[in-house]
Amino acid sequence: MTGSNILMTDLTAKARSAARYLAGVDDATKAAALTGAAQALRDGMADILSANATDVTAAVAAGISPAMLDRLTLDAPRVASMAAAVEQVATLEDPVGQIIDRRERPNGLVMERVRVPVGVLGIIYESRPNVTADAAALGLRSGNAVILRGGSEAVHSNRAIHACMVQGVCQAGLSADIIQLVPSQDRALVGDMLRAQGAIDMIIPRGGKSLVARVQDEARVPVLAHLDGICHSYVHKDADPDMAQAIVVNAKMRRTGICGATETLLIDQDYPAPAALITALLDAGCEVRADDVLMELDARTVSADAQDWDTEYLDSVISACVVSGLDEAMAHIARHGSHHTDAIITQDSATAARFLAEVDSAIVMHNASTQFADGGEFGMGAEIGIATGRLHARGPVALEGLTTYKWVVRGQGQTRP
Amino acid sequence: MTGSNILMTDLTAKARSAARYLAGVDDATKAAALTGAAQALRDGMADILSANATDVTAAVAAGISPAMLDRLTLDAPRVASMAAAVEQVATLEDPVGQIIDRRERPNGLVMERVRVPVGVLGIIYESRPNVTADAAALGLRSGNAVILRGGSEAVHSNRAIHACMVQGVCQAGLSADIIQLVPSQDRALVGDMLRAQGAIDMIIPRGGKSLVARVQDEARVPVLAHLDGICHSYVHKDADPDMAQAIVVNAKMRRTGICGATETLLIDQDYPAPAALITALLDAGCEVRADDVLMELDARTVSADAQDWDTEYLDSVISACVVSGLDEAMAHIARHGSHHTDAIITQDSATAARFLAEVDSAIVMHNASTQFADGGEFGMGAEIGIATGRLHARGPVALEGLTTYKWVVRGQGQTRP
Repeated sequence: MTGSNILMTDLTAKARSAARYLAGVDDATKAAALTGAAQALRDGMADILSANATDVTAAVAAGISPAMLDRLTLDAPRVASMAAAVEQVATLEDPVGQIIDRRERPNGLVMERVRVPVGVLGIIYESRPNVTADAAALGLRSGNAVILRGGSEAVHSNRAIHACMVQGVCQAGLSADIIQLVPSQDRALVGDMLRAQGAIDMIIPRGGKSLVARVQDEARVPVLAHLDGICHSYVHKDADPDMAQAIVVNAKMRRTGICGATETLLIDQDYPAPAALITALLDAGCEVRADDVLMELDARTVSADAQDWDTEYLDSVISACVVSGLDEAMAHIARHGSHHTDAIITQDSATAARFLAEVDSAIVMHNASTQFADGGEFGMGAEIGIATGRLHARGPVALEGLTTYKWVVRGQGQTRP
Repeated sequence: MTGSNILMTDLTAKARSAARYLAGVDDATKAAALTGAAQALRDGMADILSANATDVTAAVAAGISPAMLDRLTLDAPRVASMAAAVEQVATLEDPVGQIIDRRERPNGLVMERVRVPVGVLGIIYESRPNVTADAAALGLRSGNAVILRGGSEAVHSNRAIHACMVQGVCQAGLSADIIQLVPSQDRALVGDMLRAQGAIDMIIPRGGKSLVARVQDEARVPVLAHLDGICHSYVHKDADPDMAQAIVVNAKMRRTGICGATETLLIDQDYPAPAALITALLDAGCEVRADDVLMELDARTVSADAQDWDTEYLDSVISACVVSGLDEAMAHIARHGSHHTDAIITQDSATAARFLAEVDSAIVMHNASTQFADGGEFGMGAEIGIATGRLHARGPVALEGLTTYKWVVRGQGQTRP
């Protein structure tokens, strides 16, 4: 074994042991640990900001991009909202112990399916230090031990935040091993996490596309992630033009950097008001990369090339084309989509029903903005991410997605004939 | 691409297209396809038996083991029960379209979580030709396209059974691509299936430990499987001796070759009647591999070595040892178990509650035989297997385990503020 192997084996063994104990800990204790952690974050604000200043200074010296610098930088309001978020997770309903199925058999056996924590979660993330608090809080609330591996540019910030989270955990009488921060930035440790089958139960990457792609490519442990959010809004011929315009502009422009932002607009060839739609986007400051038909509607459009249909811009840019109808719209989404969130805008309920049934995405929407693709908007509270895989959990993943179940069978001496 | 790549790409593309269509097919049509397939199996009995005779002759000439020969061989009653099993799957409730969660938000958005098929299933199996019918039936009932890859020793039998299944599917007006049998025995095709991320959604191996281990080791597609069934029965000090004896003998000896058979007996040091337990197993024809303490109770016991605690015998052999109490029993299970099925026998409900909560297995039982670990016994109907992984589905996996869900969001023009 290499040095990194030995270190990861030690971390995961401690996490497994802590997870076994945590699975039986009551709701109030877990909530108290989170409330204590939130208070520790507030009390530790000076330390956190000082640690963050060290990271920021080094990052600026290393020539970090403005966007990454913004993600890395903490200030008092950001730390306060980090603490508030941890406190908010404490108020969410504990999913552990919920009975989700019960069968009483003719022979008297009672089978119950009971929610239990997944066990040990590995979180791999980049420059945002708040993930340290968020992921630890969601993991703990759902009874899981977490192993956190943040970006090297945020190492001091992450250590300071981690210390506060552990303080809350220990004050509640729980083991510090519930929330472990990988103590070294050795990149081999990420590989060790990804190959820790049986020792880590699920890996959740939080960060840019290159991080997620590496994790999905190398991991032997199951991964809960989305790689792309190439979301579509399809304006059907029977869409209400005012509604269509309001939804499309919102779906693209409200926040362009989130994974639920619409990246491609599909307009039915019989939709009566395509020019108004394109113009509204352009007027809102959006670049429109259009097919030949739509380019004729407004001189400010530019020509889309083949790559545009497969591109997640995360910016004030949209690709747009005309489709012959529902079938071509769904074929376009099947070919170019990322199984994240896709929406239809129409007043025709039969068309909407087919779209909702046949489009194979984690979230399908009718007459709503794709920007609603967010756990908070679904009433789940904080989310750990949006899953575009097909198994275990799909769409916004919050506490329930961090649990699994076991079958509990109670008898009175039954033997099988 | 190699030739096998090209072939697998073609198979999976057809399967995906068929799966997209099948996801919207109504319950009655799917049931009719299965009823038709059952009839085709009965009508095709002569062809199936003739094809099977070809396989059996070749297998005998190749020196196949008696156990494998038994698995391979079909006769009229076996074909009839294969048809009856397919017909029985037709009577099971269709899980597709079930609404498993519904939220109406303050802004008027309605979010429903709806069960949908997983999509494309890959089934990799060995000598049992009945898996061709079973897996195809369960896959179709839950709206999935299946790609079947059976053992080379059963190739003619599998083709004959597959032809009958396809006949039922086509008579119901569905595409033959819903149930595809890999047309070549090229072993590279198994590797292609295991690495078909995005093209195959889930691999289910059905067969011996070496097959399952290879699949788990090589697969990049998610695998639903169990590798081992090292099941434990723990006789607590407060167990009723008559009940304990009846359960333990049944758990080990009813059928020794199933994955839910108990392989290790843990006896509490304060249990009053250990000798009767050991003697009952020996009298039932079971070899008992015991620790030093238990060896003194009956001269017919043999000494267990270190490997015995990690061995799935699937035979009339049990390993047995004394434990100091509940904690040592649970520690033994955590160290040597396979997260399949583990049972406690006790009259003390607090002890049982701790065992059920803390033992980390797909199925935990109180005062019942581990031989009940079977989808049929859980009232699920036919099962595709028992999953010992932690995610997606755990324990007996039947129709519901072959589905996932999507979020369907309905609005009236909502945009996100």
